Amino acid sequence: MFIKNTWYVAAWDNELTPQGLFARTIIGVPVLMYRKDDGEIVAMEDRCCHRGAPLSVGRREGDCVRCMYHGLKFDASGQCIEAPAQKRIPIQARVRTFPVVQRHRWVWIWMGAPDKADPALIPDTPWLDDPHWRSLDGYIHYDVNYLLICDNLLDFSHLPFVHPTTLGGSADYAAAQPKVERIDNGVRITRWALDTEPPPFAQAVKDWGSRVDRWNIYNFTIPAILLMDSGMAPTGQGAAEGNRDGAIEFRGCQAITPETENSTHYFFAHPHNFAIDQPEVTHSIHQAVVDAFDEDRDIITAQQKSLALAPDFKMMAFGIDAALNQFRWMVSRRLEEEALEEAAVRPAATAAAEPVKA
Amino acid sequence: MFIKNTWYVAAWDNELTPQGLFARTIIGVPVLMYRKDDGEIVAMEDRCCHRGAPLSVGRREGDCVRCMYHGLKFDASGQCIEAPAQKRIPIQARVRTFPVVQRHRWVWIWMGAPDKADPALIPDTPWLDDPHWRSLDGYIHYDVNYLLICDNLLDFSHLPFVHPTTLGGSADYAAAQPKVERIDNGVRITRWALDTEPPPFAQAVKDWGSRVDRWNIYNFTIPAILLMDSGMAPTGQGAAEGNRDGAIEFRGCQAITPETENSTHYFFAHPHNFAIDQPEVTHSIHQAVVDAFDEDRDIITAQQKSLALAPDFKMMAFGIDAALNQFRWMVSRRLEEEALEEAAVRPAATAAAEPVKA
Amino acid sequence: MFIKNTWYVAAWDNELTPQGLFARTIIGVPVLMYRKDDGEIVAMEDRCCHRGAPLSVGRREGDCVRCMYHGLKFDASGQCIEAPAQKRIPIQARVRTFPVVQRHRWVWIWMGAPDKADPALIPDTPWLDDPHWRSLDGYIHYDVNYLLICDNLLDFSHLPFVHPTTLGGSADYAAAQPKVERIDNGVRITRWALDTEPPPFAQAVKDWGSRVDRWNIYNFTIPAILLMDSGMAPTGQGAAEGNRDGAIEFRGCQAITPETENSTHYFFAHPHNFAIDQPEVTHSIHQAVVDAFDEDRDIITAQQKSLALAPDFKMMAFGIDAALNQFRWMVSRRLEEEALEEAAVRPAATAAAEPVKA
Repeated sequence: MFIKNTWYVAAWDNELTPQGLFARTIIGVPVLMYRKDDGEIVAMEDRCCHRGAPLSVGRREGDCVRCMYHGLKFDASGQCIEAPAQKRIPIQARVRTFPVVQRHRWVWIWMGAPDKADPALIPDTPWLDDPHWRSLDGYIHYDVNYLLICDNLLDFSHLPFVHPTTLGGSADYAAAQPKVERIDNGVRITRWALDTEPPPFAQAVKDWGSRVDRWNIYNFTIPAILLMDSGMAPTGQGAAEGNRDGAIEFRGCQAITPETENSTHYFFAHPHNFAIDQPEVTHSIHQAVVDAFDEDRDIITAQQKSLALAPDFKMMAFGIDAALNQFRWMVSRRLEEEALEEAAVRPAATAAAEPVKA
Repeated sequence: MFIKNTWYVAAWDNELTPQGLFARTIIGVPVLMYRKDDGEIVAMEDRCCHRGAPLSVGRREGDCVRCMYHGLKFDASGQCIEAPAQKRIPIQARVRTFPVVQRHRWVWIWMGAPDKADPALIPDTPWLDDPHWRSLDGYIHYDVNYLLICDNLLDFSHLPFVHPTTLGGSADYAAAQPKVERIDNGVRITRWALDTEPPPFAQAVKDWGSRVDRWNIYNFTIPAILLMDSGMAPTGQGAAEGNRDGAIEFRGCQAITPETENSTHYFFAHPHNFAIDQPEVTHSIHQAVVDAFDEDRDIITAQQKSLALAPDFKMMAFGIDAALNQFRWMVSRRLEEEALEEAAVRPAATAAAEPVKA
Repeated sequence: MFIKNTWYVAAWDNELTPQGLFARTIIGVPVLMYRKDDGEIVAMEDRCCHRGAPLSVGRREGDCVRCMYHGLKFDASGQCIEAPAQKRIPIQARVRTFPVVQRHRWVWIWMGAPDKADPALIPDTPWLDDPHWRSLDGYIHYDVNYLLICDNLLDFSHLPFVHPTTLGGSADYAAAQPKVERIDNGVRITRWALDTEPPPFAQAVKDWGSRVDRWNIYNFTIPAILLMDSGMAPTGQGAAEGNRDGAIEFRGCQAITPETENSTHYFFAHPHNFAIDQPEVTHSIHQAVVDAFDEDRDIITAQQKSLALAPDFKMMAFGIDAALNQFRWMVSRRLEEEALEEAAVRPAATAAAEPVKA
């Protein structure tokens, strides 16, 4: 069960090469993506309407793709325009296409009703291609349900425990109570740790000579997009009141996209606006994040295996779970809404002419 | 769900060595096959009636087999004739045996009611051991349901797409409409491609110096046996009217035997009646077929994975699917007939004395 | 379905090191075991009550363990005593602990109602640490349900067939009818093979110069504990009447502990009271047992795969199955009793405050 009427990140823009056919499964649906000759991106179901062979092992022919099983050819709208030994192609012979938008390095896809796909709903991530910010492209794959990753990102008290040598820091960071606010389509979390040790990854890029005030302020919105203003400034100058002199700042961009019920794509970058002409700093920051995310993946995968052994296990809510409980509740509500909408429109659905069950 | 009252190919005859115990699962049933001292083949369920251990890891003792778990001994009729510390062996202590016939290099097995096993129903494959024809033994294993392989063989329009460098050839081959006739127990497909390029595998064995008329005429019968007259002759001499001078001819023999719902045995040979004293020609033809069948397996396995992700996917029939739709319909009808027959005889079934559930 | 109110062997005592966290799944429940600073063993569910992360990848802190996901800390009683950003810890925030007893080298665990865990019910295995006996620690892992291993151990007629070159011996051993008696909580099996060949493993440790009288007398009790008096003496001196002069004797200790429905832990040792100052003899005996148990695992795993293919297969009972049928019947009765008891107490069960479903 996944939310359909929402924008998911499907790829980094450079994963789609000029002539390539790129396959990725999104919320359980295999999707073929490719660029037309003018660079525009096509996203269509990666499954020929004839016998179900994947189109991604087919062949590009201009802006079309040909299934290399029996040779059916589809144009960029998904319409079949050629079939062997057959002149008239029925209009129902088509594969589904999906609205897709390339913006600030990410390729966004809409898996729901196409008429609801409003590009204005795409979260803004200008730091990914703003020349005043620097980051490297991140992607990791998880063998867990995406909600376990959301849980992780909605409670940063895990930082000193899961990430003691990377993002983490001292226990006082975990002890600080974050502020959790409901926002449109998600939650906003504000966590200030005042007068704390700079965490290892920040010590690697700056000689602080003092303790710091550290902030993580982020929106976490449906389907699972984290956009964060974070950083730290020397303690005492009043960073929390707005003085960011001498601070280092980041704009974390993270997108979690379900692949299947039990696997997930994770796209991320951690742009910084200092030392932008020093690639080694960018690389150091990126590597710290990658290392930390590998630590997350280890514990979340272990958690997932443990939960799989005990389907009746009931998680016990603690104070630190306020944000994740709110978010999970919002996800449930959206799923219920979509289920009701689908039930309402179902009578209008029609089967293709002469369908044959495999 | 598999058809039971039919002959399946279970092995090439030389897979059964004089003293060996040979195990192969046929339509979901593990089968042990071995040769008695007089060479006659025994086929019995590969599962001791006592605790279920496989007999194929047991020991030959004359024409009998002994289970090497607790030492029960079974004769060639499946009757238990020895058990440790026990003088009287109950008559119910037996394993099922199956009618089996060795004919023209193939070992055929009947998994249904033994009294219906009429050897006259076995399709004739004389080319496999006729001295005027030559071929090599082929076997490949598939991790897909056997019907997807039947589909493939019932529509040769895939040749130029799946096999461009082996069996395939030019697009006009796919464009030719085959004739499809209902025959007893299956379909007969006749496809002539006139004035076409000789395909790569045929160019390897003969210098044509011209275009060719190419034919594939085959019966595809239940359970899944393909017997084909195929070949090509220089264009213009009237091969379609019966003049096969200067032609090369083949008698493809292919047998698809389900292993389980999701895996399949594929036995094949491609006998030719020219250059029969040139082993390198036989080898070249065989290798082209093997390479082509590997290409089929790649696309069919990809298709199977795609279908597994979408259990509700409905295949859409095109004109090229006439033969496969007829065949699938015949299979369904046979399954229904057998289900009705089984329901009718079920009351007669009796349980063994003192059965113990594992 | 496993019996809960019984003592299972969970580990060899030296598997639990002073500071280590040791994880092992017992009857489907992941269990964390560790030693407190005073050496006492703690066994608790290996699953944090908060979000289900395994505690075994956590951190020892004195006699406590800290979950390294969000930092919850649990004392040796399973009570949560620390959670980030939270002063009051609810009393329901705890993980289950299990009664555990270390005795004669084995760590016994009670997975059922703690108030029923009477250490007096633990079977006695003094030979494992008695200085007059010698053995090595054995452990193997099976990918089968534990009852198939019980079956194997309850019928030694398999010895000459499965173990011809290790424990086995001649066919007359299998032909001897064992005496089977019902005892408290299990069965007692007495098997004498008089005037038989000494088996290979016994020939390796003694030059007999004669045939032997061989005995295997063992109790097999719930859940699956085998304690055996076995040995052999020169034929003719009346070993069966009590004269064990010149005999070699063993006290086999074997404990089968289900891991999951389809996997099993097997703990074993084969103490002997002769040549106890010759480590090479101890090693030779141990290796013969390990080799034999590998043979058992091969055939039982093959049996398990065969049974998995045929869920409706009914095992057929032979005379040699008297003991295993009795034992399986006792297991079934215990499972029924426990199901009735659980149904009776269920209304008293209460959910934790504010449970959240994963």
